[in-house]
Amino acid sequence: MDVVVGGGVVGLSIAWRLARAGRPVTVVDPAPASGASHAAAGMLAPVSEVTYTEEPLLRLGVASLRRWPAFAADLTADAGLTPAAGPAAGPAAGPAGVSAAVRDGLDLRAQGTLDVAFGADDLAALGELAAFMEKLGLPVERLTGRECRRLEPMLAPSVRGGLLAPGDAWVDPRRVTAALLAALERRAVPLVRAGVSELLRDGGRVTGVRLAPPPEDHPAAPEGSEQGDEIRAERVILAAGAWSAGLADVPVRPVKGQIMRLRSPVPLLSRCVRGMVHGAPVYLVPRGDGELVVGATQEELGFDTRVTAGGLYELLRDARELVPGVTELEVAEVVAGLRPGTPDNLPIIGPGAAPGLVLATGHYRGGVLMAPLTAAILQGEEGDLASLCSPARFRDIS
Amino acid sequence: MDVVVGGGVVGLSIAWRLARAGRPVTVVDPAPASGASHAAAGMLAPVSEVTYTEEPLLRLGVASLRRWPAFAADLTADAGLTPAAGPAAGPAAGPAGVSAAVRDGLDLRAQGTLDVAFGADDLAALGELAAFMEKLGLPVERLTGRECRRLEPMLAPSVRGGLLAPGDAWVDPRRVTAALLAALERRAVPLVRAGVSELLRDGGRVTGVRLAPPPEDHPAAPEGSEQGDEIRAERVILAAGAWSAGLADVPVRPVKGQIMRLRSPVPLLSRCVRGMVHGAPVYLVPRGDGELVVGATQEELGFDTRVTAGGLYELLRDARELVPGVTELEVAEVVAGLRPGTPDNLPIIGPGAAPGLVLATGHYRGGVLMAPLTAAILQGEEGDLASLCSPARFRDIS
Repeated sequence: MDVVVGGGVVGLSIAWRLARAGRPVTVVDPAPASGASHAAAGMLAPVSEVTYTEEPLLRLGVASLRRWPAFAADLTADAGLTPAAGPAAGPAAGPAGVSAAVRDGLDLRAQGTLDVAFGADDLAALGELAAFMEKLGLPVERLTGRECRRLEPMLAPSVRGGLLAPGDAWVDPRRVTAALLAALERRAVPLVRAGVSELLRDGGRVTGVRLAPPPEDHPAAPEGSEQGDEIRAERVILAAGAWSAGLADVPVRPVKGQIMRLRSPVPLLSRCVRGMVHGAPVYLVPRGDGELVVGATQEELGFDTRVTAGGLYELLRDARELVPGVTELEVAEVVAGLRPGTPDNLPIIGPGAAPGLVLATGHYRGGVLMAPLTAAILQGEEGDLASLCSPARFRDIS
Repeated sequence: MDVVVGGGVVGLSIAWRLARAGRPVTVVDPAPASGASHAAAGMLAPVSEVTYTEEPLLRLGVASLRRWPAFAADLTADAGLTPAAGPAAGPAAGPAGVSAAVRDGLDLRAQGTLDVAFGADDLAALGELAAFMEKLGLPVERLTGRECRRLEPMLAPSVRGGLLAPGDAWVDPRRVTAALLAALERRAVPLVRAGVSELLRDGGRVTGVRLAPPPEDHPAAPEGSEQGDEIRAERVILAAGAWSAGLADVPVRPVKGQIMRLRSPVPLLSRCVRGMVHGAPVYLVPRGDGELVVGATQEELGFDTRVTAGGLYELLRDARELVPGVTELEVAEVVAGLRPGTPDNLPIIGPGAAPGLVLATGHYRGGVLMAPLTAAILQGEEGDLASLCSPARFRDIS
């Protein structure tokens, strides 16, 4: 049996793939789907997320994005969701095709990402990014400011130009984790709602996990869950995000992100919009239900998930510069999550130093995007890409 | 019997005074203590709240502030609260005397308000206000920027000068309404948790209220409350804030205010701080429990209590300019309330046009400050000041 430590989008995707392949698996998490996956905006945007120095990250992202439609279709079916048939979830006044792209109950949409520039420097950076993409054969379109506003009329008049990555998509991460939990339940995969205090070791081998004792105010464990001191396993798959470094020697650190959900009576945008404002990237992600997600800060503060005055201020200030109309929207939620950052911004996927330990962590800003690829790599697919993510690259250094 | 329509700080204070005087009274409110009183910051700041053109408002505020210590002491005793004896609630590093001023369970504090100026125009306006105050014999102290920062070291370096109103105070409005509700319960004053759909009239006379039917999802009425179609009364005292105009001919309109509560591990301020930033007034009110209240927007949007991106943005932007350190604080709550504005910014207190109707509304930004005075006026005290608030002033116009 395998034990997956971590019930975020990565851990749940891995467990689901394993269960589909007929392998016995158990997931352990004190609060599944509540960490970085809960805070994430859900951009599936390998092209616009990358800088032109990060070709390996781009290759991983593009490969995982290609897997998303089938991943979403399988998950929708496996979770017993009804695919959304009608246009109900699409923007009322959006361009043709938007509604049809609301593919299923995950609110997966694929209208692309529009990266915009305000100043000459930003514009030059977008030009360099475009040249890099074209060299790699990835589709991007350079747009003037007027063309940007034709696509997205609510953009600020000061937008000078932009870059459309027409293949980029986005999804609602909370629907994804809910679907994964439903699919796992339908396949009778045990979900142990407990923390892991340490990995069990026998000689050099990892042989399972020791569960943390529940806190005193913890509710009783749900029916069917396995509550004990230890869970023995052939493999322990560590997918605990920013918390992974507490359990194994893996160079992952928490990078705090604060994010805001606004409620829009009429959709302001029909696609994801990103831009550099005051030197920091800001993005706006429209949901099918009218929500507009604004993200995200990047803060190196350890395990701190407080929503702060300064964080909200930056998000609001920068979002207003991109799309002034956000000012009128209701604030539905503010939340912070901890991304698992790595020294080279690439995830850490594959065998750990000890036999019996597998790592699937360090996805930083890309956990939702990379979940399908990560699960595939752990099934032995994508050998070339897998080598980019190999944990061995850090062992070689130390 | 009297019926008080409205269970905010004004209506509850009136009912409490009546009950103490031995008069039978019933309070009607669908959700007591949840409106403007719930959102209010609780500044008892007649001096700094006023512009130098508003002498009548200033006189009312000063008179009500004088009543606050006795009002608070009586309320604390009547509600069965234990007055706070120790220094626990005071700022750890505040000036001497701060802790001692935490007078009781209402978190009433009296370290004054510091009004600060950034530009030459602001400074000139503060100078005019100071001259006006001195002419009226009210204590104010003009301070240099350095003197301001000596009092409040967290103030922005760009503060050029200020005005200290040493007699100003503040209180926690949520503790005040909770204490009023407790005191009313101890005196067995009925509290009917229902809306009022209309005033009952017999000929020209107001004879009671008709209760609104409860909404379908409304929980069962609590024990001891009176639920019926009508409540007959000798006098109906309309203290329904911004909702008063829906029940009687009174020129009150809702003025939306958004407010934010930050959580401060160490107190940033030892007194209320106000300033004009970007042409709008912003204030910061420190609570004994470490909260810092930042307020407030002023928006003419009808009965709209949505917390908006633009409202939060303005609060955060302006608070940062006054006290840059707020950036690091956790956001505990954001809330909006509706102040009852009037054409001349003065409250409307006294007999209505119809016999049997008494008005106690239109307190705009000053409901918490003015509650003791309002209750006193309705007991026949403060004749001179009462004439300033007389509802007749609007009848004479029309």
